[in-house]
Amino acid sequence: MTERPAISPTRQEDFPEWYQQVIAAADLAENSEVRGCMIIKPWGYAIWERMQRELDRRIKAAGHRNAYFPLFIPLSFLEKEAEHVEGFAKECAVVTHHRLEATEGRLVPGAPLAEPLVVRPTSETIIGAAFARWIQSYRDLPLRINQWANVVRWELRPRLFLRTSEFLWQEGHTAHQTAAEAEAEALRMLRLYEGFLREMLALPAIAGEKTPGERFPGAVRTLTLEALVQDRKAIQAGTSHFLGQNFARANGITFLSPEGMREHVWTTSWGVSTRLVGTLIMAHSDDNGLVLPPRVAPCQIVLLPLIRREEERTAIEEACARLAAELAERSYAGEPLRVEIDARPSAGGAKNWEWVKKGVPLRVEIGPREVAAGTLSIGRRDRPPRERLSQSVRQFVAEVEGILTQMQEGYWDRAVAFQKSHTRRIASREEFLEFFTPRDAERPEIHGGFAEIPWSGDAALEEKIREEQKVTIRCIPLDQEPAPGTCPFSGKPGKYRVLFGKAY
Amino acid sequence: MTERPAISPTRQEDFPEWYQQVIAAADLAENSEVRGCMIIKPWGYAIWERMQRELDRRIKAAGHRNAYFPLFIPLSFLEKEAEHVEGFAKECAVVTHHRLEATEGRLVPGAPLAEPLVVRPTSETIIGAAFARWIQSYRDLPLRINQWANVVRWELRPRLFLRTSEFLWQEGHTAHQTAAEAEAEALRMLRLYEGFLREMLALPAIAGEKTPGERFPGAVRTLTLEALVQDRKAIQAGTSHFLGQNFARANGITFLSPEGMREHVWTTSWGVSTRLVGTLIMAHSDDNGLVLPPRVAPCQIVLLPLIRREEERTAIEEACARLAAELAERSYAGEPLRVEIDARPSAGGAKNWEWVKKGVPLRVEIGPREVAAGTLSIGRRDRPPRERLSQSVRQFVAEVEGILTQMQEGYWDRAVAFQKSHTRRIASREEFLEFFTPRDAERPEIHGGFAEIPWSGDAALEEKIREEQKVTIRCIPLDQEPAPGTCPFSGKPGKYRVLFGKAY
Ligand SMILES: [Zn+2]
Ligand SMILES: [Zn+2]
Repeated sequence: MTERPAISPTRQEDFPEWYQQVIAAADLAENSEVRGCMIIKPWGYAIWERMQRELDRRIKAAGHRNAYFPLFIPLSFLEKEAEHVEGFAKECAVVTHHRLEATEGRLVPGAPLAEPLVVRPTSETIIGAAFARWIQSYRDLPLRINQWANVVRWELRPRLFLRTSEFLWQEGHTAHQTAAEAEAEALRMLRLYEGFLREMLALPAIAGEKTPGERFPGAVRTLTLEALVQDRKAIQAGTSHFLGQNFARANGITFLSPEGMREHVWTTSWGVSTRLVGTLIMAHSDDNGLVLPPRVAPCQIVLLPLIRREEERTAIEEACARLAAELAERSYAGEPLRVEIDARPSAGGAKNWEWVKKGVPLRVEIGPREVAAGTLSIGRRDRPPRERLSQSVRQFVAEVEGILTQMQEGYWDRAVAFQKSHTRRIASREEFLEFFTPRDAERPEIHGGFAEIPWSGDAALEEKIREEQKVTIRCIPLDQEPAPGTCPFSGKPGKYRVLFGKAY
Repeated sequence: MTERPAISPTRQEDFPEWYQQVIAAADLAENSEVRGCMIIKPWGYAIWERMQRELDRRIKAAGHRNAYFPLFIPLSFLEKEAEHVEGFAKECAVVTHHRLEATEGRLVPGAPLAEPLVVRPTSETIIGAAFARWIQSYRDLPLRINQWANVVRWELRPRLFLRTSEFLWQEGHTAHQTAAEAEAEALRMLRLYEGFLREMLALPAIAGEKTPGERFPGAVRTLTLEALVQDRKAIQAGTSHFLGQNFARANGITFLSPEGMREHVWTTSWGVSTRLVGTLIMAHSDDNGLVLPPRVAPCQIVLLPLIRREEERTAIEEACARLAAELAERSYAGEPLRVEIDARPSAGGAKNWEWVKKGVPLRVEIGPREVAAGTLSIGRRDRPPRERLSQSVRQFVAEVEGILTQMQEGYWDRAVAFQKSHTRRIASREEFLEFFTPRDAERPEIHGGFAEIPWSGDAALEEKIREEQKVTIRCIPLDQEPAPGTCPFSGKPGKYRVLFGKAY
């Protein structure tokens, strides 16, 4: 007997709608009344907090200190750097008044500002102004600062987590004595993100460099991590910029060198955002809802007491409490296990499905039969939802760390296999077109992936392909083999191999 | 020989200027180019992070879950609740455009919004709109949500940490079936804050209720924690509101009761902010700079290697590393000790003073003499800055937890004694005036405190005193003795005792 899965439509039927339904079923987030601004609900926020806590730990261990800079940026700051002006002449929230006045029960803006303020879309300019005050001598370098903050980039076509007008992120900003040191820092932070994605989110991503047309406004080099999700589109999962001396010149950030010369510093910036929650959903979830790798799951094990008759209650509740206490003493990946008891009065089946859809790695049912036999009925999120494993309490407690390790590795292996099987080396223009063309143009099926081709570095050609095929160079992978071969579009010798893909 | 202390002016000489200088000397924060918006520098932010982490733990343990709501609030939301309209017809940041356009290297606002958006001054209205969707039945209650966020209330006379246009805070929002349950929740959270202030910040505060004129716009009852700082002024250190059904009616938040009736919920809100950092500074710091109670100190012990000759380096550095490793295995107040080694090449004396001014509880110097003798030279922040205690390494490691406990308790005892000695029961109008009048009107010395008087509850009289004396009722303390006596202003029988004070 085949059953309808919990999420309708399925990934194959309609991937974008499946994504919305997974978010709704797991109660992760919803749209607010303010266009493009989402509400991150407790379960979604708990996932972000898990990411945040672990990233914060890693960033601090790498020598960066947290600080907080203003939400508002004077317009004149964005005008200081020429490319930045062009880059940020876009969808921004602009504050023009600083008072509300009440007239007949209505509120109207009053007190216009002499200079409008922009709600930060990113903080290079305002942090640069602070760096100019803080840095005097080479002894003040390197300066390594990180900020956790909300930023706003007005979205005309918003999408929960992936594209929202307001989003949460961390942005790192560093200043260095030499170009080489700053470049190394930008790369080091990209690798830090790569390790975080791999170890916490079980997410393989290609580390690479953006082509000039895709760089951050004002950057000399933009590094990126590109993940392939289940509809075979690419998502940028993290980014790190070598900014050269552009922002240093714009903001007058100089230092006295050991030789007594006044020089401009070299800066970097790098960030990841709540977009990662969307990436996580698209990478791992299935037709029964959210799938959470154990390391990022806010709750790793949910205990479900199955009480059908009142006289069973005490024994079952005691068994649950005992198990929770035993599990709380054990750890996985260096942290105490995160265990919850779901004691709500609703029916066992409904509760069980709820936790399947929320992606909790292990569901443990304890009813009268289990209490009598001293066993547990265990459901794993990486197995079919009705499959149960029966284990003694003792065996489960002894093996739980191993089970979670196996699940985390299983998700990683599956994601790596997916990425591999949908990355194709392409040698001809025809093959490229075929790779990115769905068979059914009306209702395009999931198709494409990463197309790896030798590339001669021609910007006009890149733009032409982008316009005609809606396919872009996701990155020039950092790990390159020698002898890239011939570019199938220009016929010229390739400088390197690039990855093309359709992108979020 | 008496020396000038590290901070000039001293508290007695000029308290407001001393406050600024303590912040500068400890490198906590600075003003930004945006009026009223501060930059929280790494040491200041680390203190906030300590507060945040501990409060977050306590709030979660109390059954609340974190979520995140939009930064922007449509004007119409603020208009829904009549008192709120009046209450928030004030200094707010108003977003009127959602685009920047570049013309000749300048940026100008484009794309006006159909309805202006306010940058949240607080989130009752937007969270209320979400609660209206989330709450259907009594089974959805109580609903307990907390948010960590930035909020904006435009300040015309800003002051670092105490009054800034943008500040960071947590705001809790809950919904309940009954008035009694909501009132109990508001009180429970006030008591949670009170315990946090006592245990973490060593800060005694009076728990009380605001008079109607000082309530939050739309609240039925506003509870407050009032701390007395060293210039004998009061600072509100936390607040908790019972909102009745005001916001429930304004937002249509209803539930189906167990009896099948549709009813409005009863709500609460409560918050503390980065203002607490300012309160902490004013409560404990001295003329040598910041003083941090050990539980809130980002670093509790700093190790200062004193290397005068290169041949001493290896032995001293090894001794520091060994001590740091030993200390890292010990804990205080349930957390591993927070230890740093300051290995910068600058002179020992300068570094030592820097950490005095930063308020680190223990400074441990290790030079050639200490290495030879197996001893440590220890400076405590609660003793004169030049005083040193010599202990063997073994003794210090064994006793460090006790020393920190003693310091934390010492700060608490000192603050309690201060509050007691500057709280006066006042029986006559003359005594009241004398209490709040400085001897030197031109350069007012530190004077006043909490004046406790029987109060008949007369709002007009309260307003008159506020205008004439610049003194306000800080709160009606929750812990009241019976028989308050006669109000010295009206001659009427007091309903309760109130605390008057000058306030930040
Ligand atoms: Zn730029
Ligand atoms: Zn109101």
